[in-house]
Amino acid sequence: MWPKILILTLVVALVKTEYKYETKYFKVPLDHFGYQRSERFQIKYLVNDDYWNTQNGPIFFYTGNEGQIEVFAQHTGFMWEIAQEFNAKIVFAEHRYYGASMPFGNKSLDKEHIGYLTSSQALADYADLIDYLQDHSIKPKYPVIAFGGSYGGMLAAYFRMKYPHIVTGAIAASAPIHMYPGMAPCDAYYRIVTSSFKVEGQSCKDNIKRSWKVIRDFTTSANNTAWLKAKWNLCDPVKNATDVQDLIDFLGSMYETLAMVNYPFPSDFLVPLPAYPVRVVCQYLNESITNSTLLLERIGKVLDVFTNYDKKSKCVDYKKGSDYGNLDASGWDYQACTEMVMPMCTNGQHDMFEPNPWNFTKYSDDCHSKFGVYPQPDAARITYGGDRLAAASNIVFSNGLLDPWTAGGILNTVSESVEAVVILDGAHHLDLMPSHPSDPPTVTFARSFHKQRIHKWIRQFRSRI
Amino acid sequence: MWPKILILTLVVALVKTEYKYETKYFKVPLDHFGYQRSERFQIKYLVNDDYWNTQNGPIFFYTGNEGQIEVFAQHTGFMWEIAQEFNAKIVFAEHRYYGASMPFGNKSLDKEHIGYLTSSQALADYADLIDYLQDHSIKPKYPVIAFGGSYGGMLAAYFRMKYPHIVTGAIAASAPIHMYPGMAPCDAYYRIVTSSFKVEGQSCKDNIKRSWKVIRDFTTSANNTAWLKAKWNLCDPVKNATDVQDLIDFLGSMYETLAMVNYPFPSDFLVPLPAYPVRVVCQYLNESITNSTLLLERIGKVLDVFTNYDKKSKCVDYKKGSDYGNLDASGWDYQACTEMVMPMCTNGQHDMFEPNPWNFTKYSDDCHSKFGVYPQPDAARITYGGDRLAAASNIVFSNGLLDPWTAGGILNTVSESVEAVVILDGAHHLDLMPSHPSDPPTVTFARSFHKQRIHKWIRQFRSRI
Repeated sequence: MWPKILILTLVVALVKTEYKYETKYFKVPLDHFGYQRSERFQIKYLVNDDYWNTQNGPIFFYTGNEGQIEVFAQHTGFMWEIAQEFNAKIVFAEHRYYGASMPFGNKSLDKEHIGYLTSSQALADYADLIDYLQDHSIKPKYPVIAFGGSYGGMLAAYFRMKYPHIVTGAIAASAPIHMYPGMAPCDAYYRIVTSSFKVEGQSCKDNIKRSWKVIRDFTTSANNTAWLKAKWNLCDPVKNATDVQDLIDFLGSMYETLAMVNYPFPSDFLVPLPAYPVRVVCQYLNESITNSTLLLERIGKVLDVFTNYDKKSKCVDYKKGSDYGNLDASGWDYQACTEMVMPMCTNGQHDMFEPNPWNFTKYSDDCHSKFGVYPQPDAARITYGGDRLAAASNIVFSNGLLDPWTAGGILNTVSESVEAVVILDGAHHLDLMPSHPSDPPTVTFARSFHKQRIHKWIRQFRSRI
Repeated sequence: MWPKILILTLVVALVKTEYKYETKYFKVPLDHFGYQRSERFQIKYLVNDDYWNTQNGPIFFYTGNEGQIEVFAQHTGFMWEIAQEFNAKIVFAEHRYYGASMPFGNKSLDKEHIGYLTSSQALADYADLIDYLQDHSIKPKYPVIAFGGSYGGMLAAYFRMKYPHIVTGAIAASAPIHMYPGMAPCDAYYRIVTSSFKVEGQSCKDNIKRSWKVIRDFTTSANNTAWLKAKWNLCDPVKNATDVQDLIDFLGSMYETLAMVNYPFPSDFLVPLPAYPVRVVCQYLNESITNSTLLLERIGKVLDVFTNYDKKSKCVDYKKGSDYGNLDASGWDYQACTEMVMPMCTNGQHDMFEPNPWNFTKYSDDCHSKFGVYPQPDAARITYGGDRLAAASNIVFSNGLLDPWTAGGILNTVSESVEAVVILDGAHHLDLMPSHPSDPPTVTFARSFHKQRIHKWIRQFRSRI
């Protein structure tokens, strides 16, 4: 179930603001860490120089995550909004194997080509690109600030950790860098999802929790198929056990997504949603509903908010799974099956989901049958570290307490220059989004904290030239 | 000419002390940064636990450089001598593609297999090995101190820079991490070689400088072949231009090696040498020798000291080039042809050598014809950085001013925890060698500086558990 989760997470706002940039391409080696393969290919990057002071203005560099880079450029309003104040160049770099940055064209995700899709290779791409943007200078002129949200936030932090000579500082928003095996309890993520619903009313959470058995019972009878298809506006009828599971997985992802993007303003997301979408859907569940049919009708209303808020959807395509949405993030399944092993589980006790323990053996077998690889559960911890962040510097980790990914985030300041900012009312990397009149003061504070630190890092950079 | 130089540098003392260790093997992936290749192979490592406090004693970890690890274990006396004081476990890890750590057996250095010989892969091997030695623990029990000399010193520093969560601190002895293109003047190395000879007398240096033309003139006549072979005890006669160049390259390397290993005590090296070998050979050159035959006779005496101090050599095998010596370091040529690009040049003005400008095009073409690869002159700088060491921490860079490799060393303290120690009377990583009654006070100071810093790093580690 879970590998699609992060994808959904990251299929973020299609915000209305249209930012302007030039689209460029940069050649990188397929393999930065060996010389057996000599192929090179192009990664895409987007640039805006409108506010740039070419003498010594900083480069604001978004470390692209799993998806077309345009999506991240369009919704990381924070970078655009502060560029003028800093006289910054803005760069959004696309992660290899996503969007148009394909080493082997449309065969890139084939088993025989996909193996160079790793975070280390992506970071090395970014390092090469920045070296180019600095004119390959021994003493680079421009301070570079890395920005990223979610997996992009992990990359921003890792970029500073691994290449501090290239990146002056990093704003790592909602970066679950502790989500690896043994580092965070596997049930924390779903506990946070649950608590987001519980906050809107105990009944909301209880009804959802009760709904799983109701759905399973209801769908055992073929007579109910037509009713459910009609009431829930499903594209396909629920005819067998696989369909039932797909539907339940879809609903699970829906609740997760609603929690993640529980922003204080309406957003055009993967699915367009109203402000505070969790509150909106909980309106339909805010009394104890013991009648099964009524409960199913109400869940149908929730589905309708999630899938058809803009009244443009024909039907609920619950079978689409991880392809749901318009971000082409199919490479993520492979990353989750190699280095990005992030155990998740539910127990049905402290969360509103069906019990689903973390089973690494099954996970591993599934990965092998799908990609011919076995996950390396220690790889990311060995490469990037875990608890010992004290040797790092100039990173701000921000996390919103409404965001399930906070389960793997850094919530406490580690040192003078590895700092945590907690955004009480924030969902998934709200601080990177365009500012909005409904923003809670906590995110406004986070953004000014970021700006202060960026100023400090730039001063540091300049004092060392 | 030059790729063999570093090899000679590192073909270090076959010291008399025999240290005891267990020989073990550890399985590592061929490619740590991608998943296209799934082969694994074994690297060798040596362990001694005699003094180890298994509760929380540190691990002293030598980041093996280009050669069999036993050679480094046997002559890094400093680690052995301080192990008891620190209750340390001692580990010497062999660098992939050297010694017995061959991914493809005796075919490892073939063009189709050698591409995974890189510093990044070697560091990742070491990270995996330490993770294993720490029982794959999320919160490792044992502080790890990295040690290394020369390329091994570069690796020790890089290890701390890239994996600070795994390595608590690093003693990087004679690590020329600024030897990359554009970072140090290409003639500095040979200027230091020259100055080591000049210190022993202006005439010594002048005679050597004059000798090149004398040798070239003398060897143009076939009549002189027999005389030179006999006087210099050459294994092969000097018959053509290639032979002349080989001989001149051999002599150049000899002067370099003499400068590098200009230790205050006799050592069994690649070639056994007396204490202060530069002083010893300069005894033969310490007057202005204008007579060509006499000069050649005297150079013959120098050759004899260098090649036959123990009276065991049958003849001078000047054609052996980079294979001269018993360290199997043939992989180094490949590393120098890929990421380890270290420009060197002479101009015959500020040095005692024939002018030999740095010609990257020729160098690059030679690499391509030999290995099918082109050197990447920016690679190491992008991966490891150059001037911007301020973000690093817990590294001591030590350099001896007698050592030509100091040309690419860090001679000035960068920050509170990236410190430089200059050893006025020190040759190549003298501080890592076993202590000796003739040690100058400057190296004794360096060693106690190292110990103090190691104590400090271990305290830091423990205070953060």
